[in-house]
Amino acid sequence: MPLSFPLHCELTNGNSMSLGKVKGRKPRWAVRASEMSKKTFNPVRAIVDSMKVEPNPKKAMISLSLGDPTVFGNLPTNDEVTRAMKEALDSGRYNGYAPSVGYQSCREAVAAYYNCPEAPLEAQDVILTSGCSQAIELALAVLANPGQNILVPRPGFSLYKTLALSMGIEVKLYNLMPEKSWEIDLKHLESLVDEKTACVIVNNPSNPCGSVFSKSHLQKILAVASRQCVPILADEIYGDMVFADCKYEPIATLSTNVPILSCGGLAKRWLVPGWRMGWILIHDRRDIFGNEIRDGLIRLSQRILGPCTIVQGALERILHRTPPDFYHNTLSILKSNADLCYAALSAIPGLQPVRPAGAMYLMVEIEIEHFPEFENDVEFTERLISEQSVFCLPATCFEYPNFFRVVITVPEEMILEACSRIQEFCEMHYQGAEGAQDLECDK
Amino acid sequence: MPLSFPLHCELTNGNSMSLGKVKGRKPRWAVRASEMSKKTFNPVRAIVDSMKVEPNPKKAMISLSLGDPTVFGNLPTNDEVTRAMKEALDSGRYNGYAPSVGYQSCREAVAAYYNCPEAPLEAQDVILTSGCSQAIELALAVLANPGQNILVPRPGFSLYKTLALSMGIEVKLYNLMPEKSWEIDLKHLESLVDEKTACVIVNNPSNPCGSVFSKSHLQKILAVASRQCVPILADEIYGDMVFADCKYEPIATLSTNVPILSCGGLAKRWLVPGWRMGWILIHDRRDIFGNEIRDGLIRLSQRILGPCTIVQGALERILHRTPPDFYHNTLSILKSNADLCYAALSAIPGLQPVRPAGAMYLMVEIEIEHFPEFENDVEFTERLISEQSVFCLPATCFEYPNFFRVVITVPEEMILEACSRIQEFCEMHYQGAEGAQDLECDK
Ligand SMILES: Cc1ncc(COP(=O)(O)O)c(C=O)c1O
Ligand SMILES: Cc1ncc(COP(=O)(O)O)c(C=O)c1O
Repeated sequence: MPLSFPLHCELTNGNSMSLGKVKGRKPRWAVRASEMSKKTFNPVRAIVDSMKVEPNPKKAMISLSLGDPTVFGNLPTNDEVTRAMKEALDSGRYNGYAPSVGYQSCREAVAAYYNCPEAPLEAQDVILTSGCSQAIELALAVLANPGQNILVPRPGFSLYKTLALSMGIEVKLYNLMPEKSWEIDLKHLESLVDEKTACVIVNNPSNPCGSVFSKSHLQKILAVASRQCVPILADEIYGDMVFADCKYEPIATLSTNVPILSCGGLAKRWLVPGWRMGWILIHDRRDIFGNEIRDGLIRLSQRILGPCTIVQGALERILHRTPPDFYHNTLSILKSNADLCYAALSAIPGLQPVRPAGAMYLMVEIEIEHFPEFENDVEFTERLISEQSVFCLPATCFEYPNFFRVVITVPEEMILEACSRIQEFCEMHYQGAEGAQDLECDK
Repeated sequence: MPLSFPLHCELTNGNSMSLGKVKGRKPRWAVRASEMSKKTFNPVRAIVDSMKVEPNPKKAMISLSLGDPTVFGNLPTNDEVTRAMKEALDSGRYNGYAPSVGYQSCREAVAAYYNCPEAPLEAQDVILTSGCSQAIELALAVLANPGQNILVPRPGFSLYKTLALSMGIEVKLYNLMPEKSWEIDLKHLESLVDEKTACVIVNNPSNPCGSVFSKSHLQKILAVASRQCVPILADEIYGDMVFADCKYEPIATLSTNVPILSCGGLAKRWLVPGWRMGWILIHDRRDIFGNEIRDGLIRLSQRILGPCTIVQGALERILHRTPPDFYHNTLSILKSNADLCYAALSAIPGLQPVRPAGAMYLMVEIEIEHFPEFENDVEFTERLISEQSVFCLPATCFEYPNFFRVVITVPEEMILEACSRIQEFCEMHYQGAEGAQDLECDK
C-alpha cells in the first residue's frame, strides 16, 4: 500500500488529525465526529426514523406520540403565566447574566414553593437549569463517573439512557410491573445494585406509564436505597399531576436519610415545555451529599450558565399567582381523556390498557400472539399509521416491547376518533385463540 | 486495621458505592462528586474568590469586571427586541417543544441574516443553542475526543479551558501579541499543532483584548489552518461590534476550504446576555465536516434541547427589525468610552493600555517592576479594590499575568471616576526607575 494513504489515521486514535510535525508529509483533512457525539443516541429518534410512516391519505393524521401538551391548542398555559413573562420583560431587570445556578430570588421562590416540614428547602438547595433535561444531565454528571452504573426504570423515559451512555455510564434496567400499576419490582431493583451503582432513577409520576406510586411503595423504594446506600435521582417533572382520586408524594418527604436530587420544572404542569425552565432540588438532611455534590453542581452549571433570565424573572409570579383552577382544569381534562381512552381500548380485542393515575400517558399492552401479522410493537404501530393514520409510540422506545404509549393531552374528539380507528385496526388484524393457533401450526 | 473500615473505598474506583452484593457487610454511604464535576473549573471564579476584596468603605464601589453590558442600565436593549418577545408570547405559538436544534423558521432567519456570497448559509447550517456558551460546548464536544488538544488564545476567554478540561481535552495556549494590536503569533500557533489537535479557537473580536483582526491577518490564520488541516472554532459572539474606523470580517467569508464552526448569539450585540440565545453556523464548503459533524451536533443538541422557545419565536423579528441606529448607538458609546479610558490610562505612570478596536474591553499592562509592592496583577487589582474601590479583573484570569482588563460598557462618569482613582492609586505606588532599583537592592 503506497505511503500516501492517510497513515496518520492509524497513528493516532485522535479524531481531527494533522501531521504538522511530520517532516515532508502534507497533512490531510480528516475531521471525524467525537466518540461522545456518536454515543449520544436517542432511541426514540432512531426507532421513529426507522419506521415507514406513510399515513393513509384518506384519513387525517392523529398523532398521539408527542409528550408535548401544547400541540393541539386545547391546553394553553394560564394568562398569569404569560403576564408574568411580560412583566419580567417590561421591568428591564432580567436581561443581564444571572448567576449560573439562577437568581437568588428565584431559587428562594422555588425553595419556598416546594418547602415542607418533612423536606425543608432553602434557596441554596435549588439549582435552576435549562429544562428538566439539563437538571437530569447535571444530576447524573455530578453523581456518576464513567464506568459506574445507574438503575433506570423499564419502561422508562429514554433520556436517561441517552445521557448516561453519552457520559460512559452503564445503564441497568429495573422492571416495573404492569399488573401492579407499574410498581417497581423491588427485588429486581435491589438485585441490580453493585459497588459501581451511582444512583437509582425514580420517575414518579411516570412517563410512559402514567402511574403514580403510593406512599407505601415509595417508602419501600427508599428502604432499598437506604439499605444499599444508593442516592436517588427523582425525576418529578410530573409532580402534582395526579388525578383527584390519588395523591402525589414527593419522594423526599418520606425519607430522612436517603440523599435525593429531585428534578423538576415548568414544562408539564405549567404547559410551557419550550421555555426550558427546570430545577434540581437538593435533599440531603444527613449531609451525605455534603458540599462536594453541591459544589459539583455549581461548577457544572457554569458550563453553559442557567435558564433564560426572562423566565427566571417571571418564575416567582408563575409559582404564586397561577390560579389553582388552572391546575385542576388541566387534570380534569387529562383524567377525562384517560377514562375515555381506557374504556375504549379495554373493549378492543387483543389490547390491554393499563389505567393511568397521573402524568399524560397511558400504556397499552398488545397481545401480540393475537396479531400474527406483526412481529412486534414497532410493526403494529407502523401499520396503524399506514392504515389508520394514528401514530402511537411503540414502547420499544422505552425498552418495553409489545406495548404502545398513548398521549392523552389531545382533544377529546381526537382521542375518541383515534380509539375507534384503533378498534377498526385491531378487529381487522386480530386472530382469536383458534386463528392464532392455526397460524402457529402453519409455521 | 479492623475490617469494619470502609474497605469498599479501596475495592473500587467508582464513586457512590455500596456493597449490596457482599454478604454480611452493611454498605455505607459514600457519595462523592464525579471527576468531571471536579475538573469543571472556572479560573475566573477561583481567582476572584481568592481575592481579599474589601472595598474602601469611603468610596463607592465601581466594578469594571463583568462582561455584562446590562448592569448599569446605560445600555438597554432596543424596544423592538422586547416587543418581538411580547409578540411571541401573545401568539401562544411558542410554548411547546421546538426541535432540539431550533425551529426551522428561526434557523432560516439566522441563516438569512448571516448569509453572504463568500460564505453562503442555509437553515441546515444553523444550530440554535442555549447561549454562545453552549454553542462552544457543542462545537468542542463534536470536534474533540478526550486526549486530543485544542489551541486557545492567550490571553483568552476562560470558558474554553473550563469546557475543554472538563471533557478531558488538553489546552495548548498560543500567544497574542499586545505590541501588534493582539495579533496572533502565527509561528507560535503553527508550532503547537500536532497530530492530536482537534481545532483552533479564534476569538474575533476578542474578549479580553477588544482587538479586531484585519482581513489579511485572518487570511494568514486561515493559511495556517489550511496548511495544517485543522478546523476552526470561531468565537464570533462580538461579531459586528467594531468601532467605525475598522471593519469586521467573519472569518468564514475569507476561506473556501477550511471548515469552520462559528459560534455567536444575541448576548452582546443585542444586549440580552441573560436570554441564552446562541448559535453555531456550520461553514463547510468542501464537505470536510460532512454529515458526521452535522449529525454529531444534532445528536448532542438532544441532550438538553435548544434555547427558550419564546426567544426563538422572537428571533426573526429581533434580527430584522432592530433599527440600525441601535447598533450604531451602542458602538459609539463603547468607542467614546474606549477613547476616554485609553487616554486617561495612557497618562498614568506605570500603565500601558492597549487601544481596543471593538468588543467591550480594554487590556492594560502593569509595568510591574515599577510597583514593587505588588507581586503581580492579582495583588495589584486586589489593592486597587481595598484602596480605591475599583474592581478590574486581573488578566491572570485570562492566562496573561501583569495585565488587567477594563470593561468599557459602564457610564462615562464611572469610567472617568475609575480612571482618576486608578491614577491616584498608581501615583501612590509607582516607583520610578531609581526607586524600583532601590527596592531591588534591598532584597
Ligand atoms: C419523565 C420526563 N423527564 C424529563 C423530561 C424533560 O423535561 P424538560 O422538557 O423540562 O427538559 C420529560 C419530557 O418529556 C419527561 O417525560
Ligand atoms: C468571547 C466570549 N465567548 C462567549 C461568551 C459566552 O456568551 P453567552 O453569554 O452567549 O453564552 C462570552 C461571554 O462573555 C465571551 O466573552
